[in-house]
Amino acid sequence: MMKHIELGENERIDDLEYKELKIIQKNDGFCFGMDSVLIANFAEVTKKDSIVADLGTGTGIISILMAAKSSKISKIYGFDIQSEMIEMASRSVKMNELDDKINLENIDIVGMSEKKYKKFFDVVVTNPPYKKISTGLINENEKKLISRHEIKCTLEDVISESSKILKDNGLFYMVHRPERLVDIMNLMRKNKIEPKTLQIVYSHIEDKANLILIKGVKCGKPSLQLLKPLIVYDKTNNYTDEILKIYDKKR
Amino acid sequence: MMKHIELGENERIDDLEYKELKIIQKNDGFCFGMDSVLIANFAEVTKKDSIVADLGTGTGIISILMAAKSSKISKIYGFDIQSEMIEMASRSVKMNELDDKINLENIDIVGMSEKKYKKFFDVVVTNPPYKKISTGLINENEKKLISRHEIKCTLEDVISESSKILKDNGLFYMVHRPERLVDIMNLMRKNKIEPKTLQIVYSHIEDKANLILIKGVKCGKPSLQLLKPLIVYDKTNNYTDEILKIYDKKR
Repeated sequence: MMKHIELGENERIDDLEYKELKIIQKNDGFCFGMDSVLIANFAEVTKKDSIVADLGTGTGIISILMAAKSSKISKIYGFDIQSEMIEMASRSVKMNELDDKINLENIDIVGMSEKKYKKFFDVVVTNPPYKKISTGLINENEKKLISRHEIKCTLEDVISESSKILKDNGLFYMVHRPERLVDIMNLMRKNKIEPKTLQIVYSHIEDKANLILIKGVKCGKPSLQLLKPLIVYDKTNNYTDEILKIYDKKR
Repeated sequence: MMKHIELGENERIDDLEYKELKIIQKNDGFCFGMDSVLIANFAEVTKKDSIVADLGTGTGIISILMAAKSSKISKIYGFDIQSEMIEMASRSVKMNELDDKINLENIDIVGMSEKKYKKFFDVVVTNPPYKKISTGLINENEKKLISRHEIKCTLEDVISESSKILKDNGLFYMVHRPERLVDIMNLMRKNKIEPKTLQIVYSHIEDKANLILIKGVKCGKPSLQLLKPLIVYDKTNNYTDEILKIYDKKR
């Protein structure tokens, strides 16, 4: 049974299509996408009682999916610079009765390592803004802007802060766009998070890649594994078995 | 009609399965593989009258395939540190009557930019040794050693010399292993060859990647395109249509 939760103006409840989880989203704000679902699935937590950071949690989608999926997590901290997103995400957390596993905090990621979180986390997972400020059409809506563009933090901010808040040998998981892969690999190594596993996501087998899922290890040794391709749609434009499995459905 | 060419001891002639080209290989030496065929196909020459360098040409396979394929090439220079490979490759070039298009030279790639080849080339293509000296089983056969291991030149040597012999906006094409992708992207950018296009090669759709094909542009602007996956075998273990097309065959 879901708890009853108040909805604000312009908000709706969406089904996460995974273990009956639900999430509150704004009708005119940034809605979660498949990228969040894929990174939450890709981000394996291997050590018992891990403490996880979700940088730029937004609606709380990644924290909620991971908390429901992994028994090895002792606590997930979801951070976001937008206070109204944290407020909305906290109602989603309550609605799913995950309050004991998820801590939400309204904080600026830039500089957060200088406070209490230095070398605090076993795992960092993040779906950061994809677009450089100078590129892409600028969206009128401020919330979408901060979620989608590097206004409040750049890719380098995300990676360098992640490195500082991770314990040695801690795990770093990120979803991003292929265009930035060179930047990502350069910045990860520069900040002592060695890229260890990469998976490329293709909408169709005949399409260019549209997402990358990357795992790094703080102070890890160089050697990259490039996993099998993750194809989203089959030739008849239906989800592939692999995607259905991630969404916990059977054909 | 093929020219008649003398074969040395322990040599054989193999069919390249492309436009009736043939190549001489040693029975106990390093034989060309699909990696060379794929990089010769991937390495598009876009400018008329291009001058191309093939670094570490070995049997001459890449030079021969590209010379036969592209009408935009005015000359290909095939370089190798092993004089006996250059001698054997030159007989393969004669056999295919490509002497007017291919220049073979026995030269050490390391330092070659200090001589006559500084900013000389429009295109560099290379299938360099994949293995670090400290890793992998050491092969008894010296020729295989130099072709497969970074004995005579490291990955950094290949990339930094390529950068120096390329004209500005010149094209760089390399085939390599996924394990080294982070090193490759870091070294390319460090040496002012910006990675622009990446294609991942998977043996089967359910397998980890086993090769990467990368294109860089000397002094290019950052932004990577990640092409559709290149799958070698289909579910019945036959070549996919894409591979058959590269080998110029119809089902």
